[in-house]
Amino acid sequence: MTLLAQQQEILNAVEAGFAKQVDFLGQLTRFPSTRGEESAAQQWMSDAFAARGLHVDRWALDHQELQHLPGYSPVLAPYENAVNVVGTSHSKTRRGRSLILNGHIDVVPTGPADMWSRAPFAASIEGDWLYGRGAGDMKAGLAANLFALDALAALGFRPAADCFLQSVVEEECTGNGALACLHRGYRAEAALIPEPFNETLVSAQVGVIWLQIRLKGIPAHVAYAAAGVNAIEAAFPLVAALRQLEHEWNTQTDKPAHYAKHAHPLNLNIGKIEGGDWASSVPAWATLDVRMGIYPGQDLNQAEQAIRDCILTAAQQSAFLRENPPEIINHGFRAEGYSLADDRSETATVAIQTLANAHQQVSGKALQQEAVTATTDARFFGLYGGIPTLVYGPKAEHIHGYDERVSLASTLRVTQAIALFIANWCGLEPL
Amino acid sequence: MTLLAQQQEILNAVEAGFAKQVDFLGQLTRFPSTRGEESAAQQWMSDAFAARGLHVDRWALDHQELQHLPGYSPVLAPYENAVNVVGTSHSKTRRGRSLILNGHIDVVPTGPADMWSRAPFAASIEGDWLYGRGAGDMKAGLAANLFALDALAALGFRPAADCFLQSVVEEECTGNGALACLHRGYRAEAALIPEPFNETLVSAQVGVIWLQIRLKGIPAHVAYAAAGVNAIEAAFPLVAALRQLEHEWNTQTDKPAHYAKHAHPLNLNIGKIEGGDWASSVPAWATLDVRMGIYPGQDLNQAEQAIRDCILTAAQQSAFLRENPPEIINHGFRAEGYSLADDRSETATVAIQTLANAHQQVSGKALQQEAVTATTDARFFGLYGGIPTLVYGPKAEHIHGYDERVSLASTLRVTQAIALFIANWCGLEPL
Repeated sequence: MTLLAQQQEILNAVEAGFAKQVDFLGQLTRFPSTRGEESAAQQWMSDAFAARGLHVDRWALDHQELQHLPGYSPVLAPYENAVNVVGTSHSKTRRGRSLILNGHIDVVPTGPADMWSRAPFAASIEGDWLYGRGAGDMKAGLAANLFALDALAALGFRPAADCFLQSVVEEECTGNGALACLHRGYRAEAALIPEPFNETLVSAQVGVIWLQIRLKGIPAHVAYAAAGVNAIEAAFPLVAALRQLEHEWNTQTDKPAHYAKHAHPLNLNIGKIEGGDWASSVPAWATLDVRMGIYPGQDLNQAEQAIRDCILTAAQQSAFLRENPPEIINHGFRAEGYSLADDRSETATVAIQTLANAHQQVSGKALQQEAVTATTDARFFGLYGGIPTLVYGPKAEHIHGYDERVSLASTLRVTQAIALFIANWCGLEPL
Repeated sequence: MTLLAQQQEILNAVEAGFAKQVDFLGQLTRFPSTRGEESAAQQWMSDAFAARGLHVDRWALDHQELQHLPGYSPVLAPYENAVNVVGTSHSKTRRGRSLILNGHIDVVPTGPADMWSRAPFAASIEGDWLYGRGAGDMKAGLAANLFALDALAALGFRPAADCFLQSVVEEECTGNGALACLHRGYRAEAALIPEPFNETLVSAQVGVIWLQIRLKGIPAHVAYAAAGVNAIEAAFPLVAALRQLEHEWNTQTDKPAHYAKHAHPLNLNIGKIEGGDWASSVPAWATLDVRMGIYPGQDLNQAEQAIRDCILTAAQQSAFLRENPPEIINHGFRAEGYSLADDRSETATVAIQTLANAHQQVSGKALQQEAVTATTDARFFGLYGGIPTLVYGPKAEHIHGYDERVSLASTLRVTQAIALFIANWCGLEPL
């Protein structure tokens, strides 16, 4: 068989299995695998790996093991239910290049369900779209990894190198799930993560810092409001100061090259607030969850210090906060940026070219690269494992929003591209 | 026995029973009778009334019955557990003037318990102070009402007119508990409420409006923050506009006379906020609970409309809020102001004089009057029942704050003054 004919067979095999894949994706999306609730979905992934004869490895994350590793992010929640699953396709010949196919099982909260036009975890399909929290970010990617291997198996093949299918937790808040895979010894010559970036290759990603600001006020009956200090309103000028810092970082003249043309690469977000408990009591506390982006190459510790200084300097403007400064807690991401495009190794170059070929073969178009304003787990493999990592996945809309949805046609193409990538990167050997 | 000698006996009898009263107050304070959790404490009050041979009436509040009455305030919570208790001391002779002795059993939330130097419901005593959420506001007053009658009973007397001991719910958010008493037919020639105003008589009280502002934004992954609208930050300019309105109302030149010398009678409070659920998702909703004071005589509907207009006008400044205006919900107080000092009836005059005499007898000082910046249930009896209502209670500190506490010496004096007031207002008859 010619190479081209074999490639066409692979594309056909993915298409032949796609109805099953969509069904699988629907079932996976129906698990409401938000933070702390991932275990049922992980059991499902584990069963799916085992049913295909992959070697299955499951383990719970452990703060003690991870906390001194580079890339670790602190969280306040326990990790009893935070379980990673890896299914390994062992090669007999090991002729080719090994590969990690990674994806995350955790999804962000839905927000008020009544704001969705469909139940957030119903996984309903309308036209080309499959709807659901996590459908795009990134259960479609998890399914694509698995069904790409299935298509090769349907043709009687498996990768001619070890191939590790990883379903990890904690991508959305720390990345400690991917870190735990690395720490457990999983290594390969390249990694691929089908995050939903619309069939473009991520050339660079920002770093992300999460901080929790805890303000105390002085509670009082509102009748004596002058005797109290309102902790909710005390937060407002701190937010204004952070917006100013965001503006400065985005308009600095020495932005990294990948983001030079980007109007606003670093986004600040006040993502959550809680304060007070009674309309007629001056609120004595307020808690804000803050996210800030940083550039690849920007020193994480310095950046965090600059954010902390910004908050504390703004607090100096208030007579009360001067004496009762806000507590600033690390609570989630301490993520550095990562740039695949800066990896000049031959391995990286070949990996990118191999994916570009697969993409061209499937879509008839050249592979576009994009520097993105989010983080992904790619940083662990790239920065701390020396593994060039390709982030390339389907088209999705409204991720982290209402009515999140993923394009099925795009998911099919991405699955085909992944299958071709495996065939050409790892090579194939008979089952 | 001379009148003076009898009065001294009453003071002595209150003092003799005060150890028991403090014990009772401690036990009552240990019930965490926050909104929705009042029933155990009401059972305790009911048992205490029954043990004294009072006729006990208990009933659950009913929105359907109350909602068309003047003074009703809407709430969103159900009323299954909202039970009022009234104990009636029936007179045989009915020679004197009837009296309502009212108090509320509900207490506001404690806030974070670790901010208290003592457990909020432990009711620990240190020196002259009994500590606890609700100890001052107003379980000390509930106990004072009951033990004033006990002291008279210890001397072989009861009031020579019907006397109604009311323990009501909902004072802290609507007043619907007191309204339900009125609607049930409880009437008397005067009412007394021992709210903790430091042994001064409340001459006037403000009205209070609670509103809940619900903002929607557009959720998005923070990587695409420009595609989202942050509902938390959308609230900030609305709060600024409300602060401006508060300033205007407090500085208007035609303040009612009772508040003319008051620097800041009307307090705005942003008492509670909740918004968003994930640091890296642009928050799509925020909810603020707002309290605003109004003057006695200020039209409630007009005032509420002015507040609503203020919020909606500020919202017009935002392109997004212009298209998606905040929802403004009635959710708690729609309370008019009330001024006892404006009640020129002979009944009111005599009631005030009777209390002033009692206060003088106990404390050796003239009774001070004060226009207060809070609301109380007095408005129901005064405005809708035509019953002059005396608000006069013990010294307390940090009500609605941490380490709320009530002075025991003050509670003793107030109980003595109430006992004298009953003796002189209702007269006494043998048991």
